[in-house]
Amino acid sequence: MKVLMVNPNTSAAFTLAIQVAADRHKAPGTEVVVTSPASGPRSIEGTYDQLLSSRPSLEVLIPARDQYDGFVIACFSDHALIHAMREMTTKPVLGILEAAVYTACMLAPTYGIVTTGGDKGKIGVRATLRRYGLADRCISIRPAGMSVQDLEGISDKGMRQRILDEVRKAVEQDGAELIVLGCAGMTGLDEELQSALHVPVIDGVVAALKLIEALVGYGLGTSKRGVYAPLQGKELLNMDPLFSKAYR
Amino acid sequence: MKVLMVNPNTSAAFTLAIQVAADRHKAPGTEVVVTSPASGPRSIEGTYDQLLSSRPSLEVLIPARDQYDGFVIACFSDHALIHAMREMTTKPVLGILEAAVYTACMLAPTYGIVTTGGDKGKIGVRATLRRYGLADRCISIRPAGMSVQDLEGISDKGMRQRILDEVRKAVEQDGAELIVLGCAGMTGLDEELQSALHVPVIDGVVAALKLIEALVGYGLGTSKRGVYAPLQGKELLNMDPLFSKAYR
Amino acid sequence: MKVLMVNPNTSAAFTLAIQVAADRHKAPGTEVVVTSPASGPRSIEGTYDQLLSSRPSLEVLIPARDQYDGFVIACFSDHALIHAMREMTTKPVLGILEAAVYTACMLAPTYGIVTTGGDKGKIGVRATLRRYGLADRCISIRPAGMSVQDLEGISDKGMRQRILDEVRKAVEQDGAELIVLGCAGMTGLDEELQSALHVPVIDGVVAALKLIEALVGYGLGTSKRGVYAPLQGKELLNMDPLFSKAYR
Amino acid sequence: MKVLMVNPNTSAAFTLAIQVAADRHKAPGTEVVVTSPASGPRSIEGTYDQLLSSRPSLEVLIPARDQYDGFVIACFSDHALIHAMREMTTKPVLGILEAAVYTACMLAPTYGIVTTGGDKGKIGVRATLRRYGLADRCISIRPAGMSVQDLEGISDKGMRQRILDEVRKAVEQDGAELIVLGCAGMTGLDEELQSALHVPVIDGVVAALKLIEALVGYGLGTSKRGVYAPLQGKELLNMDPLFSKAYR
Amino acid sequence: MKVLMVNPNTSAAFTLAIQVAADRHKAPGTEVVVTSPASGPRSIEGTYDQLLSSRPSLEVLIPARDQYDGFVIACFSDHALIHAMREMTTKPVLGILEAAVYTACMLAPTYGIVTTGGDKGKIGVRATLRRYGLADRCISIRPAGMSVQDLEGISDKGMRQRILDEVRKAVEQDGAELIVLGCAGMTGLDEELQSALHVPVIDGVVAALKLIEALVGYGLGTSKRGVYAPLQGKELLNMDPLFSKAYR
Amino acid sequence: MKVLMVNPNTSAAFTLAIQVAADRHKAPGTEVVVTSPASGPRSIEGTYDQLLSSRPSLEVLIPARDQYDGFVIACFSDHALIHAMREMTTKPVLGILEAAVYTACMLAPTYGIVTTGGDKGKIGVRATLRRYGLADRCISIRPAGMSVQDLEGISDKGMRQRILDEVRKAVEQDGAELIVLGCAGMTGLDEELQSALHVPVIDGVVAALKLIEALVGYGLGTSKRGVYAPLQGKELLNMDPLFSKAYR
Repeated sequence: MKVLMVNPNTSAAFTLAIQVAADRHKAPGTEVVVTSPASGPRSIEGTYDQLLSSRPSLEVLIPARDQYDGFVIACFSDHALIHAMREMTTKPVLGILEAAVYTACMLAPTYGIVTTGGDKGKIGVRATLRRYGLADRCISIRPAGMSVQDLEGISDKGMRQRILDEVRKAVEQDGAELIVLGCAGMTGLDEELQSALHVPVIDGVVAALKLIEALVGYGLGTSKRGVYAPLQGKELLNMDPLFSKAYR
Repeated sequence: MKVLMVNPNTSAAFTLAIQVAADRHKAPGTEVVVTSPASGPRSIEGTYDQLLSSRPSLEVLIPARDQYDGFVIACFSDHALIHAMREMTTKPVLGILEAAVYTACMLAPTYGIVTTGGDKGKIGVRATLRRYGLADRCISIRPAGMSVQDLEGISDKGMRQRILDEVRKAVEQDGAELIVLGCAGMTGLDEELQSALHVPVIDGVVAALKLIEALVGYGLGTSKRGVYAPLQGKELLNMDPLFSKAYR
Repeated sequence: MKVLMVNPNTSAAFTLAIQVAADRHKAPGTEVVVTSPASGPRSIEGTYDQLLSSRPSLEVLIPARDQYDGFVIACFSDHALIHAMREMTTKPVLGILEAAVYTACMLAPTYGIVTTGGDKGKIGVRATLRRYGLADRCISIRPAGMSVQDLEGISDKGMRQRILDEVRKAVEQDGAELIVLGCAGMTGLDEELQSALHVPVIDGVVAALKLIEALVGYGLGTSKRGVYAPLQGKELLNMDPLFSKAYR
Repeated sequence: MKVLMVNPNTSAAFTLAIQVAADRHKAPGTEVVVTSPASGPRSIEGTYDQLLSSRPSLEVLIPARDQYDGFVIACFSDHALIHAMREMTTKPVLGILEAAVYTACMLAPTYGIVTTGGDKGKIGVRATLRRYGLADRCISIRPAGMSVQDLEGISDKGMRQRILDEVRKAVEQDGAELIVLGCAGMTGLDEELQSALHVPVIDGVVAALKLIEALVGYGLGTSKRGVYAPLQGKELLNMDPLFSKAYR
Repeated sequence: MKVLMVNPNTSAAFTLAIQVAADRHKAPGTEVVVTSPASGPRSIEGTYDQLLSSRPSLEVLIPARDQYDGFVIACFSDHALIHAMREMTTKPVLGILEAAVYTACMLAPTYGIVTTGGDKGKIGVRATLRRYGLADRCISIRPAGMSVQDLEGISDKGMRQRILDEVRKAVEQDGAELIVLGCAGMTGLDEELQSALHVPVIDGVVAALKLIEALVGYGLGTSKRGVYAPLQGKELLNMDPLFSKAYR
Repeated sequence: MKVLMVNPNTSAAFTLAIQVAADRHKAPGTEVVVTSPASGPRSIEGTYDQLLSSRPSLEVLIPARDQYDGFVIACFSDHALIHAMREMTTKPVLGILEAAVYTACMLAPTYGIVTTGGDKGKIGVRATLRRYGLADRCISIRPAGMSVQDLEGISDKGMRQRILDEVRKAVEQDGAELIVLGCAGMTGLDEELQSALHVPVIDGVVAALKLIEALVGYGLGTSKRGVYAPLQGKELLNMDPLFSKAYR
């Protein structure tokens, strides 16, 4: 099976870390290609950044549509690319936020999320969970007070300590039974934190890969009835013909 | 006061209809500019279309950021442009879906929405309302079974009849006390339907304009603490310098 | 356009403050009459007070029914008068709690409310928001520990400081992105607090006035289908004939 | 134990029916007084009627405050008198809507309500359940299409048939496992409907009486901390001194 | 009327305490039998314990099915025996968690629960309330940090102090207006805590008994339509014939 | 990796069908053992049946605790065994209802469930989803009107037609974008229904197996903090020593 993971930002460090995590955890027989767009923002910390990252990511995704068995959008958010890609394919598509949250629900009644930034991420994640109808079991969202780009230096000890501190508070003060890492840039921290805190720690990048393998293994794909019905062709004014290919 | 209304699709018919509605309802002293992007899809019927419409719309919005007192994104959805624009300005910004729904809540305990398309729109609107924490009072969402682009022919009698039929069912069968028009392309139908059904009928285009006038009149703007905090500058790889201007 | 704002308590200080705020913020062309009943409690701090204030307020509202284009009930609660008045008129009617909350939702994903009293107000406001289907986005309700009547001395520096302290906690500790003033007696504090905290601060009195102007400007009124259907005439035992006039 | 049941409307037929039901179901040792106000509307079908009924009912309740062990407000709504009375007493106070709903929850996972009127009652009951945090288990609300006053003629066979028809639909079409009678005027129909439909049918008048007996029997009363804290004395302008007695 | 209360664990101390509470609070004319199974765990602190306690409890309940007017399962949880028993009888059946919570709702808008154990009980109670559609009004769940079996030594002063400390925090810090005792082993503490804190304190054992009296007094029983429909007979492999008697 | 799937009823036909489905879908390298208890009911259609099935199933699960990498309880319900087993192991444990529902959420915004029986299953499933915080996205639950045991004859054409009919209504009338099979006895129908309806159809037996493989592949297990903390040893009166082995 072939899986395409798209890191929608242009941080080479993130793309590499995702590739390392994927290679480490993929099943025998799974081939994972990790890629990122040729242009766009180095980190995604809001809707504007998300929009800037979208067109170059579509330029990667549209030609890849029929070449893979499943797709992962490796950004810890409800990135619009997840939904756009589902409109274009019958294959399974997962974002890493949802993948992490579904996995969390399988292992514990409640969970917490440690994010980057300040209140911004916290409030946005809460709204996303509500949209997905999944807000009830998330009992703690804690920003670790660093920017996404700071996480390029994740090997720095002080930064890891700050993340550990927030995870500890989520577990010990808020009572979270499991922790979800709230940024693709935290990839690789799961085992270290799990050893320190003795609760499961989920990296959405790995969770998404394993769930895609499960879905492909079962033979299931995105529903094409309703929200992800095939796209109706329409006039595109002054746009590259590539974008017309996504329509039926 | 100057208000910018952006129709994010490239249908000239829609842009014109929005201008007509705005001119008809604006307060004395309000100047309304209605515009649309120079490229992109002729209608927006899903996330892919939404993404295609975003970059050209940003090219309109970024330079306009300091030229207006308030902004309307005239697409009946939770269009990402609403949130992106709020990240870029201290002025009020409204989408027409939310504007219509808040207005509805002021006039009736329950309301219904008549949309285009089939189940796709229905399910998407429900998820948006849930994300906004507003799902409880919407007791009917009825697709009228036509594409968005079909609405360019809204002067057609048969099409108006199909919309009227669904509105009637929302009121008489589902018990909706008020109707929200679920597409910018239905602009101008409010009075006709209101006369026929004897319940308030809300066009989100007009609702958004009147609410922007109210907010500007009060002197209120978008909160810059939390989700819409000013954008942090970051490296943009291979992108037009225009897009860097949105950062601090 | 003519708007009637009824302060349902008998505090002349409150009525005056409401008039000052209305005069300051009304649009050109809007005439605002602020009034209060000829009898009743000097402050409204619960359901009993609300009931005492209702009949004398109805004595003001019934004759005014056809004289105004819109109505505001200037009490920060789900005052029964809001609903009773809607049963009697086709014009728009708003309470200041709901007006403030809808306005808040237009400007920020989350908001906090600073109220008078202790836990009483907090729990009551939460139940009201739940009834309105609006509880999800209110993330902080903080009582400032003073009685409603204390607010007649709002010019006192110590009292303003206590309110400021709670607003600051709502923003800095609870993460509220916007503040709603939870009592008509706080009218006039919005700008001062906004300057101090750098988040939007909403006075429901002004918010209600601006929203009524928006609704009247659009030509919308209360739905008369469903909950606010015209009142059915019925026998009134031993009551002033005035009260029969509200029935059809 | 002495229980006071107040029918807040002035229909002698209703007061009598409530007395009959109470006498039939009260426990040995319980004394029930059923009364109604000296003035006010003959039926309560909305907020305006509720407000008209409130002051004369308070004139009954205030002097009775210390004479009874428990109180019932016999109106199928979230009548403001319930909350006002709780502010005035340490004894238990129940409305018949909530009493019926709590009782329903003890006997079945889901229930339906058959009401008077049309959509008005339906939407109002739904909002009340949401306010009480009890909406999830009510899966059917069906108006029987008659006015409250029509129920004075409840001995009429045609009327009983219409109610039976709606109850049957709630059970057979909507899947309700238990039925709540949605008006004090339906008192006495419970056994007849229960025999016909083979599901429990709850008359809120009886449910409230039995629950008050249970609460008094246990020695429990209304919490005086929070929402129902004792009333703070305040100036009452131009009001009968009776109303000052409710304050501490 | 005859009521059977089953303590599903094998702690003789608990069974005795329940009997004392029941005898103290039962109405004249009520006969209460308190019993416990002949085998099983001495305390129930999770699902495994619950399952171990179930078969011996069924051995008590099946033969008693037609001998009593109502049944109480005296374990503060959503014990599966409550639902199993309802499938077997037309009589009312209550667990003490739900009985306490319904009673709480009659006396205060919000309540808190003090439980045994640590976070385990807290998270489990929250999930149960959500399942019952009752989570909105519970604003505090506080574990007192002791095992269920520790409560056999409830006469110990230090233990009572720890419970009192948590109850005080629920009231003073969390704003709970009423307290529910979250374990059958706390039976008998209600009056002492109520005197100390001046809020109603509810023992679910007593609440369940009084509610069963109310239901039986009204003549109501478990709905046999839907979830608690009579059991369909089926083959039981290698089981005691007693268990076949529960089927029709 | 070794996975144990327990069919908690004693239907050999079901156990066989589960084995066939597992063998068909397991990944290379996965060994699946399907077993069922030595005694108990032939089908599980409510809480009583569930309790009867529990002890014999525990007799299978306790000795197997350390022999497998993951566990599936193959009953379409919130079977108490799922939670009891999680208390006893650090390995992942899934029920087939939750496995199917999480999988559904990955592939479509909304889904429907087709169950056995009548309203009983429908109401119970809804309560389970609410408890899990997952109710929002399930928009259709349709009983196919047959008993669980009837499904032993699933090869019968008429029975398959009845299931197909309900699935079609869920999709075409209710708008479900994906279907979940609501009984282990429907195992094997997924592909046939998927071909007929053109929406994904999920068999929880297969979904659970694939998700267990994903969790084990990632190295994740049940959280042992909070609800599933290791069991505290306690006195077991008159019970087989086997049951003491589950405690620490």
